[in-house]
Amino acid sequence: MPLFERMVIAGVGLIGASLGLVARERALAGEVVGYGRGEENLKTALARGAIDRYDRRAAEAARGADLLVLAVPVRSIRAVAAELIPYASPHAVIVDVGSVKLEVLRVIEPLVRAPAAFVGCHPIAGTERSGAAHALHDLFEGQLCVLTPTPTTDPDALGRVRALWQAAGMRVEEMPAAEHDRLLALVSHLPHVVAYALVSAIAGASVDGRDPLAYGGGGLRDTTRIAASDAQMWRDIFLENRAEVLRAIDEFSAALARFRASIESEDGDRLTAELEASRRARRNLGERRS
Amino acid sequence: MPLFERMVIAGVGLIGASLGLVARERALAGEVVGYGRGEENLKTALARGAIDRYDRRAAEAARGADLLVLAVPVRSIRAVAAELIPYASPHAVIVDVGSVKLEVLRVIEPLVRAPAAFVGCHPIAGTERSGAAHALHDLFEGQLCVLTPTPTTDPDALGRVRALWQAAGMRVEEMPAAEHDRLLALVSHLPHVVAYALVSAIAGASVDGRDPLAYGGGGLRDTTRIAASDAQMWRDIFLENRAEVLRAIDEFSAALARFRASIESEDGDRLTAELEASRRARRNLGERRS
Repeated sequence: MPLFERMVIAGVGLIGASLGLVARERALAGEVVGYGRGEENLKTALARGAIDRYDRRAAEAARGADLLVLAVPVRSIRAVAAELIPYASPHAVIVDVGSVKLEVLRVIEPLVRAPAAFVGCHPIAGTERSGAAHALHDLFEGQLCVLTPTPTTDPDALGRVRALWQAAGMRVEEMPAAEHDRLLALVSHLPHVVAYALVSAIAGASVDGRDPLAYGGGGLRDTTRIAASDAQMWRDIFLENRAEVLRAIDEFSAALARFRASIESEDGDRLTAELEASRRARRNLGERRS
Repeated sequence: MPLFERMVIAGVGLIGASLGLVARERALAGEVVGYGRGEENLKTALARGAIDRYDRRAAEAARGADLLVLAVPVRSIRAVAAELIPYASPHAVIVDVGSVKLEVLRVIEPLVRAPAAFVGCHPIAGTERSGAAHALHDLFEGQLCVLTPTPTTDPDALGRVRALWQAAGMRVEEMPAAEHDRLLALVSHLPHVVAYALVSAIAGASVDGRDPLAYGGGGLRDTTRIAASDAQMWRDIFLENRAEVLRAIDEFSAALARFRASIESEDGDRLTAELEASRRARRNLGERRS
């Protein structure tokens, strides 16, 4: 028996459509319905097998849903939730998949009844590409999904949501939304703003009429790959998690200033120690995750 | 007929050993001889087919060489050059492969006669790994090699060196050493110091007893991959190209401060414009190089 009878995915972008692919492949839902604004992308999702059908009318899409996946940008989440929730089953479980969790809770909690069947979710998976066309069967495999329940979250809903992501191949971990937002500011939002700033600095430097970017090797390509990510999405994330992003930028600037000081003062021993410490930490990361 | 009779490679690390592999495979030299301090690595180079033989005695290694490849760290280059040059052919062509070129010129030029048969080379290729064990047959394929001749460089030597790197699969471009050092500070040295500082900031942030690095996804892995690079090698590069590295760090810090200001002031339009500009520049890079 599937985990859910009718899964409605609002926003079949990279994450929404990949979840649809996995849900249909592994029979996690009796039916997967797509909902969204752009018909082109919904058609792509249908053609790729990420959904069984789609409907651009809220009532038709949401009717009888016992799982509502809000996979739209956070700035649209309140409007989309308000459109769909009235038509979903009264016992429907509601999840989001956003990269920022406190702001989502603030927006969604007033719309759902207590004990809240809403569970904030962040499947930490993605590429620099977006849209159903880039959905992947194995996007979630082996990756981490953070759930951010609150004291009012319905335990039954939480259990079913946990089972869903595990069935999609993910490791699941719970933590408070504020802690999630602090961690993600460090390991995801900070690297993104750094990558964007790196490209900006290099592209903006003039070197005798040459385009510096043309001289980069694999290191530059890797370091800046995520600067090809969707600008609107990242503008929203930076603004929604503003306080933690600013804090992370300041912590990074302090670390960079330490390296700069060692270089400026030609303190080779201190520089070696600093580089070695980072190298060891990075090597551990490599072993842990690959 | 091979380009050179006897190629002597001092330092069979990643670059030296990869050049040896290609030279033997494509018959660019009649014989490839390895020279270095560490016998283990020389043995590995021999076993991998990167050299025909090796010798740890300078006279035996360099005798009759008509191409001397100085593939040791810049801090060792003067000593190694002084050891080998007396035994090489009087008409030997001498090249280095270092990431910083002004400092190499300063060190090497006093050791060679004019018209100088020395040609500063920087094959822009590499991985975060080092040593002959990680040498690759296709490391140079399609990548750029920058040559930094001076007004006293022997044109015949320059032509033969150009032919060597082209035969190894590289695109070759000439520019003044100072311009090379400025460009490389931007596209290589800066991304490295940023990656090291990123790992340092994230690893150093405490989040309720959790290790933040454990929560990173593919973006963090890519952005920090080069922070696993050899610390001694990068300490040397940062110090040898100190002025340009500091300048690039300051340009990057200014760019980061612009992004930070847009986030702090919640100026969504300006932030979008800044992110879009970086994204476009990065997309061009992707198309140009992959």
